Amino acid sequence: MQFNLQPISNVLGVLMIIFGLSILSCGGVALYYEGGDSDPIIKAGLVTFFFGTAAWGYKFKSEANVNKKEGYLIVSLAWILMSLFGALPYYFAGVCPNFANAFFESVSGLTTTGASIFGDIESLPKGILMWRSLSQWIGGMGIVVLTIALFPLLGIGGIELFTAESPGPTTDKLHPRIKETAKRLWFLYFIITVLLILLLWVGGMTLFDSINHAFATVSTGGFSTKNTSIAFYESPFIHYTLAVFMLISGMNFSILYYGYKRYFRKMWSNDEFRYYLYFCFGALAIISLLVNLVNPGDFEKNFRDSFFQFASIVTTTGFVTYDYTTWGNGLTMIFFLLLFIGGCAGSTAGGIKIIRHTVFVKNMFLEFRRILHPRAMIRLKINKEVVPPRILTHILVFLLVYLLVVVVGSLIMMFLGIDLATSLSMVATTLGNVGPGIGKVGPPYNFGDFPDTAKWVCSALMIIGRLELFTILILFSRSFWRTN
Amino acid sequence: MQFNLQPISNVLGVLMIIFGLSILSCGGVALYYEGGDSDPIIKAGLVTFFFGTAAWGYKFKSEANVNKKEGYLIVSLAWILMSLFGALPYYFAGVCPNFANAFFESVSGLTTTGASIFGDIESLPKGILMWRSLSQWIGGMGIVVLTIALFPLLGIGGIELFTAESPGPTTDKLHPRIKETAKRLWFLYFIITVLLILLLWVGGMTLFDSINHAFATVSTGGFSTKNTSIAFYESPFIHYTLAVFMLISGMNFSILYYGYKRYFRKMWSNDEFRYYLYFCFGALAIISLLVNLVNPGDFEKNFRDSFFQFASIVTTTGFVTYDYTTWGNGLTMIFFLLLFIGGCAGSTAGGIKIIRHTVFVKNMFLEFRRILHPRAMIRLKINKEVVPPRILTHILVFLLVYLLVVVVGSLIMMFLGIDLATSLSMVATTLGNVGPGIGKVGPPYNFGDFPDTAKWVCSALMIIGRLELFTILILFSRSFWRTN
Repeated sequence: MQFNLQPISNVLGVLMIIFGLSILSCGGVALYYEGGDSDPIIKAGLVTFFFGTAAWGYKFKSEANVNKKEGYLIVSLAWILMSLFGALPYYFAGVCPNFANAFFESVSGLTTTGASIFGDIESLPKGILMWRSLSQWIGGMGIVVLTIALFPLLGIGGIELFTAESPGPTTDKLHPRIKETAKRLWFLYFIITVLLILLLWVGGMTLFDSINHAFATVSTGGFSTKNTSIAFYESPFIHYTLAVFMLISGMNFSILYYGYKRYFRKMWSNDEFRYYLYFCFGALAIISLLVNLVNPGDFEKNFRDSFFQFASIVTTTGFVTYDYTTWGNGLTMIFFLLLFIGGCAGSTAGGIKIIRHTVFVKNMFLEFRRILHPRAMIRLKINKEVVPPRILTHILVFLLVYLLVVVVGSLIMMFLGIDLATSLSMVATTLGNVGPGIGKVGPPYNFGDFPDTAKWVCSALMIIGRLELFTILILFSRSFWRTN
Repeated sequence: MQFNLQPISNVLGVLMIIFGLSILSCGGVALYYEGGDSDPIIKAGLVTFFFGTAAWGYKFKSEANVNKKEGYLIVSLAWILMSLFGALPYYFAGVCPNFANAFFESVSGLTTTGASIFGDIESLPKGILMWRSLSQWIGGMGIVVLTIALFPLLGIGGIELFTAESPGPTTDKLHPRIKETAKRLWFLYFIITVLLILLLWVGGMTLFDSINHAFATVSTGGFSTKNTSIAFYESPFIHYTLAVFMLISGMNFSILYYGYKRYFRKMWSNDEFRYYLYFCFGALAIISLLVNLVNPGDFEKNFRDSFFQFASIVTTTGFVTYDYTTWGNGLTMIFFLLLFIGGCAGSTAGGIKIIRHTVFVKNMFLEFRRILHPRAMIRLKINKEVVPPRILTHILVFLLVYLLVVVVGSLIMMFLGIDLATSLSMVATTLGNVGPGIGKVGPPYNFGDFPDTAKWVCSALMIIGRLELFTILILFSRSFWRTN
């Protein structure tokens, strides 16, 4: 046996204890609102807590040394276990008698996707609503730390060069050790969440809805407490506030931390951050222009709807104030393509991420020069440093594997009898952790009516996408299980 | 001026003289059948011939030294000029009063795509039908020589290692000089065509139809002289013969030449050839099984239809005996995906090609090992030799650029109001030089009813795809036009 079960079990145990306590906190909310869902939620929390305690206690050692392969197993199992136990509140409370539905909703929350199987959300008790939102907030928190602190160590995603802070002699740089990094990032995450809660409350939401929507925004999750999502609110202030905070949450939290420390020049010197802003401004200008052409009339409303929908999809949040599939074929296609963009690496956003698109596009233009000058050394630079060929290859492979997973997923959906547009977009939206898509998964629809097989496949896709493909896919490779 | 116009003009002149003579030969056919189309075809041939003579005579020198950039211009302009002059017979004969249609049909022939704008093919006069078929045969002949002899010199496609014969001391290897290589390949091309004409004639086709269908098969073009394509013929012999010859035409002609010389071990030692056969057997087994499940009944008929449709799409020919979109969503998706496969490099087939898929898939599995063992040198091998990182990167970039072109093309189609399935597949089928797609470009349809803009875009896509993307795309890069 090349894996040591003891540290894996201990680490997961601690995680599940915390996770159980989180579920219990929603039990508290349920008790307060007396929606009849407190007993099942508390039961789910206790089951999780005791499972965690048992795993934590298994041959407990205070120092856990984890090797690389064990690292992959821990990350993958953590997300799978959280998804399973996170489904218990829905299942026990009877709002999802079908476990496939409960699991889907749980995965959708923890991966910050925000695709729901519920048609009538407003009929759900408050404790359950809170758990939906909190699961996203926990998932977002987890992923920021994973991508910034842990994935670089595991060599996942090929973005180790770009997520970590730029090297060099500075006393103020983010502390390299995982624990310190995690603390600072969580502090920032917490601050942003609190700020948004206050803004939404001031803007006219109830405190309960403010908390829920803030959790769903900062994590770029997208679960709403309203059936019509943010379209429920007519306040332009709420729309603009949420759109801006979605865009902020799509930024690398290391870079945001620079901003918090007022190192603005350092922020601006980060290529991904700059291209993200350029892309947002450019795409927004085009989209709002097109929307005004297609749907002439109230310019401010059109701009606001364009801004909101764009911010929501590009950051993989998934809130809606307007059904973009009603803007015609061309704009529908644009929003379908936006499912593949994703925010910045090291943010809570899913998808392919701006940095990988940057690498692809810059390298494509270099390729023309390489063809014309085969003997010249023409190298890609990001953040003013040469990207090693290993990393370049890895990112190109990532892009292709991403598309391969979309193709394989869509093929399965089509064999389940689902049409092409819906198949492609339901796979793209779950793999990219976005939420809505086009066709029968467009903004007005939910995932409740699809066959269970489709829900299980989508659940798998959400986890695969959230963990940057390779964390999960590598478990299916022969070399992973070979002793050497 | 960094380009020397004189050699470009001379080379293109010779080509257009030959091309003019080819058109005139169809004028002869038209005279024989007295379909009233001889005058316009002869007129088109003479215009082309005199244009060629003028270009050939421009500052004529007997020795033409061509540099790399001039090489790109010659190849690109050759295809564009042939497409323009090749459209004249349709335009002059009045069968395409709309020049966009005439140009589309001409491009479709020369790029061996086989997508047509004609609804009623059987009403066309014989000279025009012959020109449709001959244009494919010429296009196929041209592309074999380009990909095997010329592209490696230009560094196009990243497959220089795999199309050229394997190096090493053998007196029987294909002669490295372009002229010799071209002669041998054309000899083989001619032999296969004649053999197929005889077989089809024996199988019950008229001589005229045998010649037309043989031209369309060996070039993997797919223009038929019948409205219902090969479904017009009920003979299983004709179906099987065409399917086998389509698969043969999808093979690398250098490798086929080995076969002709009976170097069977050398054929088998070629990775792409082997994987092509494995893929064909595997995919055919799955597809015929699925077709029998979806459509139980006559096993032989189902197998034959699966075999024929598979061979037709994978080799990018585009003949049909059965509408595969009636086999349900799942199989429709499979045939949509087959649009992206393509035959072997150095064949007349279009598309991405087996060798690039091989490089992608093999490298993907190596990537898992690279993640787990970051310090090990894990290199991709094809034909038992290490693939240099440059070539690997180039092929990965090719795959991504290919998909990017599909995306951009589809976006344009959707803004023209065309639905998603049709947009995606009309772009994929024209870029891959296949012919039919799914949706409104499925087997029962033609391209005649789309807006002219869509036809121009598709024409551009056919040329871009036929010339392996970079030949054309590089003309739009700044580095191409910069003097250095």
